[in-house]
Amino acid sequence: MSTASYNYTMLCDYYELTMGNGYLLAGLGDRITYFDMFFRSVPDEGGFAIAAGLEQVIHYIENLHFGREDIEFLRRKGGFDEAFLRYLESFRFTGDIWAVPEGTPIFPNEPILTVRAPAIEAQLIETFLLLSLNHQSLIATKANRIVRAADGRAISEFGSRRAQGSDAALLGARAAYIGGCTGTACLLADQAFDVPATGTMAHSWVQMFPSEYDAFRTYCELYPENATLLVDTSNVLKSGVPNAIRAFDEVLKPRGITHCAIRLDSGDITYLSTRARRMLDEAGWTGCKIIASNSLDETIIRDILAQGARVDGFGVGERLITSKSDPVFGGVYKLVAIEDEAGVIQPKIKISENASKITNPHFKKVYRLYERETGKAIADQLCIHDETIDDREPLVIFDPDYTWKRKRIANFVARELMVPIFRQGELVYHCPDVHELQRYCREQVDTLWDEVKRFENPHHYYVDLSTRLWEVKQNLLGARG
Amino acid sequence: MSTASYNYTMLCDYYELTMGNGYLLAGLGDRITYFDMFFRSVPDEGGFAIAAGLEQVIHYIENLHFGREDIEFLRRKGGFDEAFLRYLESFRFTGDIWAVPEGTPIFPNEPILTVRAPAIEAQLIETFLLLSLNHQSLIATKANRIVRAADGRAISEFGSRRAQGSDAALLGARAAYIGGCTGTACLLADQAFDVPATGTMAHSWVQMFPSEYDAFRTYCELYPENATLLVDTSNVLKSGVPNAIRAFDEVLKPRGITHCAIRLDSGDITYLSTRARRMLDEAGWTGCKIIASNSLDETIIRDILAQGARVDGFGVGERLITSKSDPVFGGVYKLVAIEDEAGVIQPKIKISENASKITNPHFKKVYRLYERETGKAIADQLCIHDETIDDREPLVIFDPDYTWKRKRIANFVARELMVPIFRQGELVYHCPDVHELQRYCREQVDTLWDEVKRFENPHHYYVDLSTRLWEVKQNLLGARG
Repeated sequence: MSTASYNYTMLCDYYELTMGNGYLLAGLGDRITYFDMFFRSVPDEGGFAIAAGLEQVIHYIENLHFGREDIEFLRRKGGFDEAFLRYLESFRFTGDIWAVPEGTPIFPNEPILTVRAPAIEAQLIETFLLLSLNHQSLIATKANRIVRAADGRAISEFGSRRAQGSDAALLGARAAYIGGCTGTACLLADQAFDVPATGTMAHSWVQMFPSEYDAFRTYCELYPENATLLVDTSNVLKSGVPNAIRAFDEVLKPRGITHCAIRLDSGDITYLSTRARRMLDEAGWTGCKIIASNSLDETIIRDILAQGARVDGFGVGERLITSKSDPVFGGVYKLVAIEDEAGVIQPKIKISENASKITNPHFKKVYRLYERETGKAIADQLCIHDETIDDREPLVIFDPDYTWKRKRIANFVARELMVPIFRQGELVYHCPDVHELQRYCREQVDTLWDEVKRFENPHHYYVDLSTRLWEVKQNLLGARG
Repeated sequence: MSTASYNYTMLCDYYELTMGNGYLLAGLGDRITYFDMFFRSVPDEGGFAIAAGLEQVIHYIENLHFGREDIEFLRRKGGFDEAFLRYLESFRFTGDIWAVPEGTPIFPNEPILTVRAPAIEAQLIETFLLLSLNHQSLIATKANRIVRAADGRAISEFGSRRAQGSDAALLGARAAYIGGCTGTACLLADQAFDVPATGTMAHSWVQMFPSEYDAFRTYCELYPENATLLVDTSNVLKSGVPNAIRAFDEVLKPRGITHCAIRLDSGDITYLSTRARRMLDEAGWTGCKIIASNSLDETIIRDILAQGARVDGFGVGERLITSKSDPVFGGVYKLVAIEDEAGVIQPKIKISENASKITNPHFKKVYRLYERETGKAIADQLCIHDETIDDREPLVIFDPDYTWKRKRIANFVARELMVPIFRQGELVYHCPDVHELQRYCREQVDTLWDEVKRFENPHHYYVDLSTRLWEVKQNLLGARG
């Protein structure tokens, strides 16, 4: 059974409906609330993450509704008031959403999406919104790490078979492309999102023929322009590479084709690739590329390249599609303000004994500040919604925890990070295609200093609060404390 | 965008189609092939895994077809022969499939699913089949570990928001239930699969009211029969538990209700639960249960219970729904035999320099051998398809790597593990519902010795080969070597 027959409106946590029913009965259903989605730490202890998954949130919001069978199901399940079930019949999203565009580098504790909506609506969308942004941001972030480790070599996403379900395969391929992969093995991702799908042969192709040579020769005859031969079915250097060279010589050379490739899927990639490179070059196949796969990730790729592996491109599977080394993107969705009966915004805070879990209250906007001269990002600043940063004036920013750490900046450009997505329930945003998103992501990652991009102990990028916002937070902390 | 609008037939690796096109053109398209799905190591270094995901494979196989728009897409993409595209127009699965039922404990290197089909068909289904069985077996296995750690206490699956996509949320909840969870927070899993969904309140509920007490009191009034109060929004022991007791006293007690619960979602669960238990008991609320959540897994649950935590049930989120400590189930799909032109089955092997990657060749069946007296599982034995184990006779089993390790067994019962699912493309299997699967899983896990179920260094369960199968493998290794 696929999810095809289900309405994603029901893909919520049950408590969102028990609370919704409660808000309606307690007279709080129409109360305008503000929720932020943000995350607290970057996967793999990296310096930044990449936002992704917004397009799927948009489709979800546009299609939000309860069908007759959904309401019948809830009625049978029990515990809901008839007034609430009637309310659900005409339920749709009527609020506002702002979000950071997909492909943007993002940092802990800043909103990457803000919802302003009646309490029931804002609460109901929590689960899907989190799972979509958490999942795709996780994969885009991991892909970007792997792409950076490969230092200009192509990374192809190969992980569908180890993905955590079909969405993880399809949307993981999409997110990986936004993060910088050049393609995917997943055909559906090509059809659905125009992520280029590529692929050649499995070991079974080689096993289907009387010999490895026959398998290679047949493949080259069928696909002379796209001959990537998998050379590790029995022995790479004794059998695979010699048979590949023979097939290239006999089939491609007479046709004047000089581009082709071999793929290594097991064994020591550094050793095998340098030896295979020499064999190919000596046979005149300098145009033959070497592709490596087999449980790769950014750490292994960086290591084998540092050791001199002669690899032109990588296929990366399970460790990318599940972000194996850190498979959870911990985005949360927290109430930050409520409008009182007079329509005045009352900021809210969630206290915790763990200081890192205390939220940044209020309806906010986020600015990213860039050096005018270099274009490099200096810091992000969270402001109250009605504040504006004038980048023609110098600005003093300060660390919200260690307020004596201050920095005066001038000659900068301030850019608002979040853009309007929905206004009063209407979509006001055009989703860029994946190629635009990939290009935008690359440009934006280029605005980060190398210190922020380092894998080990990256520089802690500043996410500061405006003075007014800092004061609001201190007052709320004081009032609770 | 959801996957709802896509046909999962296209959720394949592109190479399955380039190979399919190649098989057709090379005259191998109708050649009958045998593929096994199996895995090589148990996640988290456990002693066994739990099979899950078969029902979704069945729906996928039943719905396999290429729509007109799919074929048009492939034509535009290029590289496919028109004869192949015409072949795809009437493509459907015509082969046989055998599989281990969901909920069965499974071990490395034994087939958990076997396909017998024409080469193109058998190859095309590789990706979806692997991703479905890999994903759900991963989650069912993890859930079963967590359930065993909780030692009879209820485990509820809470992870949708951190799942890797909507299928991961929905089908992860299904797999977790098969593995032994008592329920889920995911409403859609209840609607789609009858996995019981439960849930009460988020921190935002508490923040929506003038005080924590007002929030609790309102909730108890609305849901007196199902009042689980989240007590950590500001301070568990100073505010949360006293306010909960006051709300229980004022709302539940007058109605004669003695069952209720509190939920701890942060802080030290051992400390907080023992203190909260004492406060509740002293106030007369001995019937109030304590539920804990917050980044739990089997290790933490076992540890805090060993320390005397007074927890009656656990909500387990991200570490279950992603199997965070080991998020990849490494199932593979390998060609094990081909019928020659005369219809004779020719076993095939895949050699690797890594001995653990050498496959078990041939069209096989799998027996599980149980002690007749205790019902405990002794070993699994892989046999050639036409072999039968007669459990009225003693049997000598031996380690396939260390053949001098032999064991004579008698008074045992032999049960075939794989059952027919499809015969010549027709479904011949009835999928049990999740409740039956959960019960079957529990019974089957009970047949394993505690030594196999241990978390650290579990006993290595025997998966042996019959003498005939062992000889076939040795001959193929010798022929290649």
